[in-house]
Amino acid sequence: MTEGKLICWIKLRDFCKKVYVQLGFQEEDAFLVADSLLQADLRGVRSHGIERMNVYIKRVELGLFNLSGEIKVIEEGPSTILVDGCNNMGPIACCKAIRLGLAKARESGSASICVRNSNHFGAAAYYTNIIAEQEYLGFTCTGAPPDVAPWGSYVQYLGTNPFSVAVPTSDGTMVLDMATSIQAKGKVRLALARNEKLPEGWCLDKHGNPTTDPAAALEGTMLPVGGPKGYSMAVFVDILGGVLSGAAFGKYGPHFARDFTQPCNVGHFFFILDIERFMPLGQFKKRLDVMISDIKALPKREGVDEIFLPGEIETNKLKKAKQEGIFVDGVQLQFLAAMADKFRIPMDF
Amino acid sequence: MTEGKLICWIKLRDFCKKVYVQLGFQEEDAFLVADSLLQADLRGVRSHGIERMNVYIKRVELGLFNLSGEIKVIEEGPSTILVDGCNNMGPIACCKAIRLGLAKARESGSASICVRNSNHFGAAAYYTNIIAEQEYLGFTCTGAPPDVAPWGSYVQYLGTNPFSVAVPTSDGTMVLDMATSIQAKGKVRLALARNEKLPEGWCLDKHGNPTTDPAAALEGTMLPVGGPKGYSMAVFVDILGGVLSGAAFGKYGPHFARDFTQPCNVGHFFFILDIERFMPLGQFKKRLDVMISDIKALPKREGVDEIFLPGEIETNKLKKAKQEGIFVDGVQLQFLAAMADKFRIPMDF
Repeated sequence: MTEGKLICWIKLRDFCKKVYVQLGFQEEDAFLVADSLLQADLRGVRSHGIERMNVYIKRVELGLFNLSGEIKVIEEGPSTILVDGCNNMGPIACCKAIRLGLAKARESGSASICVRNSNHFGAAAYYTNIIAEQEYLGFTCTGAPPDVAPWGSYVQYLGTNPFSVAVPTSDGTMVLDMATSIQAKGKVRLALARNEKLPEGWCLDKHGNPTTDPAAALEGTMLPVGGPKGYSMAVFVDILGGVLSGAAFGKYGPHFARDFTQPCNVGHFFFILDIERFMPLGQFKKRLDVMISDIKALPKREGVDEIFLPGEIETNKLKKAKQEGIFVDGVQLQFLAAMADKFRIPMDF
Repeated sequence: MTEGKLICWIKLRDFCKKVYVQLGFQEEDAFLVADSLLQADLRGVRSHGIERMNVYIKRVELGLFNLSGEIKVIEEGPSTILVDGCNNMGPIACCKAIRLGLAKARESGSASICVRNSNHFGAAAYYTNIIAEQEYLGFTCTGAPPDVAPWGSYVQYLGTNPFSVAVPTSDGTMVLDMATSIQAKGKVRLALARNEKLPEGWCLDKHGNPTTDPAAALEGTMLPVGGPKGYSMAVFVDILGGVLSGAAFGKYGPHFARDFTQPCNVGHFFFILDIERFMPLGQFKKRLDVMISDIKALPKREGVDEIFLPGEIETNKLKKAKQEGIFVDGVQLQFLAAMADKFRIPMDF
């Protein structure tokens, strides 16, 4: 097994971009996909980073994406936009929809955007961060394939249905990004690989009994976070992302990593709010600074070294990885080398 | 102890309304406050029903509310409204702000409304239901006094900071209403009043130790639902409801049930979305019907009689209580009798 190493994220992003260009994407679109993957890796959310390229590339090669990069506005109102993602990859459809939304929010104070006929969009925080970096409040949620049982059932119907909110702060952005399930499914696979038991309350087996055995859990279902609360949030995420957008919802969305016979028709919802319609941005950030410094200074429970703000752990990882590089393990290096070979792209890292 | 009995909710609402009229409120405003309380009782959310009148009336009598019923629009854009609640009671400020918001959403497709200088607004579902009954998607969240410790601390800084989302369905509304704490604080107060223990895992005492004693819990802190997830949601609810609105946030909001020296300057955020900007309402409801009937028909875990949609249990209680009456216990009956005596209102139930 090749050893892993730290790689400059810009070089890694450039490499990924070149892969997508070779696959037939426009330069700009290839950049959007590569950037969304690398931002996840920078933030330590490896499950949504270059780890995912394998599946994405397989779908591209099977002709399951539209490579044109064009999206269509189906309906537009003073503060609303309904977008047909035209079966582009998620980051392409979503980044272009957000650009339209930001222009709308500048005019109207807010924009509510539904995107249908899109695909898996990666980490939700990628989009809310883009919005918050433009000094707007951003929210997004997305449809997702059925991996979670509604509360009281043991049959998967809802998705992990994540949502994200972000705001600009004095020195960057603050972002929440959470699945409405109790944990990411990747954590279950990791436990299986490491031959570890799962914490109680995460999963049910295929008969609906609680299980701490990751193998049994993978045949069963993930549970929602906080029981009925996570379940109810997942329902509403799926209503906004799936039902309202006109995309697939509930059990009707093909699984992007399991079903390679058809496009996924994923739907997303975005909300962009102009903070300055309520107070000057500087005042908002000053008030937020008070909250942030208050919370950081609170007495800590025994065994707690630091109290973190939402997304702060990921932002710290991002800052470190931008300086020191992203750690790419041996398996991923082999995968990148195979890509370099296949698409004749130099690996200058 | 007087025995409890079932009382017609309309009569109870009328009685409560008369109390508020006697306290100096306009007829319409008294109705809004009484209706918000009774809708909570109908839905079985007793912690936000007439149980709360005691504290509300005390604050009225201490001159801590503005009784004029007037609110002010501070800023208005094509899809945004910033409202000064002018220290009216929460239901009065909020219902009037929502009326403005519904008119705006009709024109623009959506309305984002911040309300500052308001007060405790009761059950969040009251407002999203009003919006959904008008065939719009409704969201709200609210600032709340410091009752919950940020994750990693044991000192209360955030509130239970609830949020609610509702949509119209084929036969009514579907509504999520949840505190970002593990439970509503009202449930702790109710347990204290009923001399009941709390379930484990809800609260810490003031030393940071887990407790099931509601009195110790009220001196300590509530815990967020799902640990860092609930904590992060509370932060963003407080940003929308408190920081952005210009109202109190974090630890700066006086506690409406503990501090009787000053107004509370509570802030709320409302979002109203016109479903028809995305698809015809009938189509939306048909799609939602599919999701609802799918979920209701899923196989149930052992010991589960029925799978409920978000808010369905409360809606069932509401239907039953509208027919059979609301159960008012002995303590509440004595309280109502004292009110009847004090304000010379006939108790015709």
